[in-house]
Amino acid sequence: MTIATSYRTTDVRFVTSSRHDGVPQPPLDPAGRSTAASAAYLAIEPESADGLEGHGFVYSTGTGNHFQLAAIDAVMALIAHRDVESLLADMGGTWRMLMNDTRLRWLAPDTGIVQTAIGAVVNALWDLKAKRAGLPLWQLLSRMSPDEIVDLVDFRYLTDALTPMEALDILDDAVPGRAEREAFLLANGYPAYTSSPGWLGYTDDELERLCRQALADGFRQIKIEVGVDLERDIRRLAIARDVCGPDFPIAIDAGRRWDVDDAVRWVGALERFDLHWVSEPTSPVDVLAHAAIAKAITPIPIATGERAHSRVVVKQLLQSNAIGYLQIDATRVAGINENIANLLLAARSGVPVCPHACGAGLCEAVQHLAMFDYVAVSGSMEDRAIEYTDHFHEHFVTPAVVEGGRYRAPSAPGAGTEMLAESVDAYSWLSLVALDGVA
Amino acid sequence: MTIATSYRTTDVRFVTSSRHDGVPQPPLDPAGRSTAASAAYLAIEPESADGLEGHGFVYSTGTGNHFQLAAIDAVMALIAHRDVESLLADMGGTWRMLMNDTRLRWLAPDTGIVQTAIGAVVNALWDLKAKRAGLPLWQLLSRMSPDEIVDLVDFRYLTDALTPMEALDILDDAVPGRAEREAFLLANGYPAYTSSPGWLGYTDDELERLCRQALADGFRQIKIEVGVDLERDIRRLAIARDVCGPDFPIAIDAGRRWDVDDAVRWVGALERFDLHWVSEPTSPVDVLAHAAIAKAITPIPIATGERAHSRVVVKQLLQSNAIGYLQIDATRVAGINENIANLLLAARSGVPVCPHACGAGLCEAVQHLAMFDYVAVSGSMEDRAIEYTDHFHEHFVTPAVVEGGRYRAPSAPGAGTEMLAESVDAYSWLSLVALDGVA
Repeated sequence: MTIATSYRTTDVRFVTSSRHDGVPQPPLDPAGRSTAASAAYLAIEPESADGLEGHGFVYSTGTGNHFQLAAIDAVMALIAHRDVESLLADMGGTWRMLMNDTRLRWLAPDTGIVQTAIGAVVNALWDLKAKRAGLPLWQLLSRMSPDEIVDLVDFRYLTDALTPMEALDILDDAVPGRAEREAFLLANGYPAYTSSPGWLGYTDDELERLCRQALADGFRQIKIEVGVDLERDIRRLAIARDVCGPDFPIAIDAGRRWDVDDAVRWVGALERFDLHWVSEPTSPVDVLAHAAIAKAITPIPIATGERAHSRVVVKQLLQSNAIGYLQIDATRVAGINENIANLLLAARSGVPVCPHACGAGLCEAVQHLAMFDYVAVSGSMEDRAIEYTDHFHEHFVTPAVVEGGRYRAPSAPGAGTEMLAESVDAYSWLSLVALDGVA
Repeated sequence: MTIATSYRTTDVRFVTSSRHDGVPQPPLDPAGRSTAASAAYLAIEPESADGLEGHGFVYSTGTGNHFQLAAIDAVMALIAHRDVESLLADMGGTWRMLMNDTRLRWLAPDTGIVQTAIGAVVNALWDLKAKRAGLPLWQLLSRMSPDEIVDLVDFRYLTDALTPMEALDILDDAVPGRAEREAFLLANGYPAYTSSPGWLGYTDDELERLCRQALADGFRQIKIEVGVDLERDIRRLAIARDVCGPDFPIAIDAGRRWDVDDAVRWVGALERFDLHWVSEPTSPVDVLAHAAIAKAITPIPIATGERAHSRVVVKQLLQSNAIGYLQIDATRVAGINENIANLLLAARSGVPVCPHACGAGLCEAVQHLAMFDYVAVSGSMEDRAIEYTDHFHEHFVTPAVVEGGRYRAPSAPGAGTEMLAESVDAYSWLSLVALDGVA
C-alpha cells in the first residue's frame, strides 16, 4: 500500500516586474489592476518505486495564497492515509468522497477556496494517474469507456438538466470516430484565440500592433477588454476591426463591470463592430441577469463560466439560455471531474466550450479538457477555440505549444500541471521575501 | 486618530461532548452529522479612552477555522492602518472598500471564506459603533434616516431588481410608525420558532416530548428535519401534527438533500400534513431548481437563503418567485450591510424574512436584523418569526432572551456578537488541544 501522506505545498508568485523591493507589491497588470500571476501549488509525492509525482495548483493573484494552501491541507487530510492506488483506481469515488465531506461542505457549499482546493488535489491525482499510464491526460480520458466517464461525475443537483443516462447517450454517440478525431488532433492541433491585443492598459498603437501580430500568428479570434470608457471602447474596436478586416472574429470582455441595463446599453453601442461574443458582462453567479442580457442583445452571444463557482452555476447558465459559449477554467472549480460534468452539460445543451486560459499554467492544464471534449464528448471542434496568452509557459515542465494559431496536442504523460522545480524554488513567496531582506 | 491595528482572532470550538481525547473528533450533532458549534472569532481593540471593543465571528463547524481566521487577517489588513472613527462614520464606504478589493474578490467573487471574513470584520465594526452609540444595533439602525440606510448598500448587481430610489421608497414608506413599532417591540418582543423537536437523530418519543415542550414554551411554529427516510418522515410528521393540532404551523427542512424530482415527489408525499414551508430542498445556489420546485409544490412555499453566498443569489431567488420566506443568516454573507441589502430585496418582493439562527451566537446576532426590519424596512411582524435553539447562549455577554415564544428586544449596547472572555479562553482550540496533551 502506497499512502499519499507525503506532499509539499508552495506559495508561488511570478512577480512580473523587477520591482519587488521592500514589502513586495505586485505590479499592475496590462489592464491597470494590481495583480500578479500566482499559484497555490501542490505536489503529491507517494513513496513508490516509479518515483512519479502528481502536481496541481490553484491559479490566483497572490493575495490569499496562504489560506488557499491551508484549505489544500484540509483536503489532503481526507486522503493522506488512504492507499494511493485505490484513490487513482476510482477517481469518481475519490472525487465524491472529497466533495461530500460534510464539514468542508459546511464552510461554503460548492464554492470558493474549498472548491478550488479540492480541484488542486484532484488535478494532482489525475496528473499522477496520467503519468503512471504514460499518457497525456486528454488521451487517458479519451480512451476511457462511456461508463467509466459517467462514473467520474456526481450527478447530485444536475439531474434536472442531465441524468447519468443522458450523459451516457452523449458519450456513446461520440464513440464512433474517436480514433479519427484523435488522429486529426495529433496532426492538426486545436484552434486558439488570443486576448493579448485587447488589454485596457495598452495604447492604441500597441493595440494596433498586437492585432497585426495576432493575425500574423494565425489566431482565429481576438478579444478586446471593454467597459470602463465607452468612447475609448468605440475607438479601440474601430482600430481592431480595421486591422482585422470584416470577417475576423472579434470578441469583447467586460470584466464583470455591468448591471443588466448597463450591459444592454453598452453592447448596443458596440454592436456595429460585429461582436463574436461578450465575455463576463456581469456577476459570475447572476444567472438571471445573464439570461436577461442575452435576450436583449441577441443575436450577440454571451460567453462566461470562468468564474462560475461550480457545475450548479454552469448548469443554470445553460438551462436559461444565458450563454452561447461556455468558458471553463482549469482551476476555478473542483478539478477535472467537475469540469467533465461541465463538458457534458454543455454538450447536452449544444453549447461550444471555449476554455478560459489567461493565467500562469491555465493553458497547460485546460487544453487537455478541450481536446478530451473534441475526441470523446462533443466530438466537434467547430466554432471552438482555447484562449492563449504568451506568458509563464517557461515555468512548466511540459509547456503548451501554440503554432500557426493552434494548440499542438500534448504528447508528454501527465496533466500539464507540473512546474519546473527551479521555478517553484525561485518564485516561492518565502524565497522572494527573503531575497528582499524582509523576512 | 485611533487606528484599528490592534485585534485578536481566536479559533473557538464549543465541544459539546466530554469526549475530546486524542486528536479531537467533534461529536455527532442531533442529526447524526459530525459537526461541532464553532466560531472564527474576531475582537477589534482600538486604543481609545472608552476601552470599547468590537466583536464579530463566522459560525462554523470547526473544520477550516484556521483558514477562515487567515482570511479575516487578510481583510483586517485592508483597514488596520485606517482611522477607526472614519471607518465607523462611513460604514457604507467601509463596506464597499472591503467588497471591492480586486485581489480579495479574485479568489472567489461574492462567495465563500472571503465573503464571511468581510462579514466578521464588518459586524465587529458595527458592534463597536453600536456600543459607542450606547444602543443595541437594531435601535441604532432603526434610527438612521432612509438616505443613510440606502448609503450602506452597494447596489452593484442589484439594480435589475432594486435601485437606490426604490430602496429609498421602501424606507420612506416605513418612516411613519417607526416610534410605535419600536415601542411595540420593546413591550412585546418578536415571535420565535423552534427547530429543536425535529432533528433526525431524535427518537419518536423525544420528538413527541419536544413538540409538547415547544407548545408549552409558546413558540409559534416548529420545524422537522426530513429527507433521509420517507416512511420515517411520514411517521414523525404524523406524531408532530397529532401533538400540535391542526392549525399549528409545522415546517420541514430537507437539508439540501434533493434534486428537483426528488423534492417534488417527497413533498408531495408529505403535503397531507399541511406544511408551513419547505426549507433548503436543494443546492443553496440553484435558483432555477428552487423555482421549478416552488412551482410544482405550490401552494407550499419554499424557505431558504441561510446558505446563499451573497445578495446576488438572494436577489435571484426572489426574482424567480422561488421562495415564500427568506432565511437570512448573520454570518454567512458579508455582514450587516449585505444583510440590509437582503432585507430591502425581500421587502421589494413582499417576501417575509424569517432568519436562520441554528448555531452558536446566531440568535444573538440575527435578532437585531429582524427587529430593524420590523421597525424600519418591511414594517411588519406578520407571518414572521426568528429561529431559536436553546444552545450556547451562556457564552455570550448579552445572550438572546426568548420568553413565551418571543424574542425580547435587546437593550444592551452592541450587536450581540461579543463572547464572554472566559468562554473564548476556555474553548479556544489551542487550549482544548493543550488540555488533551496533543500539542
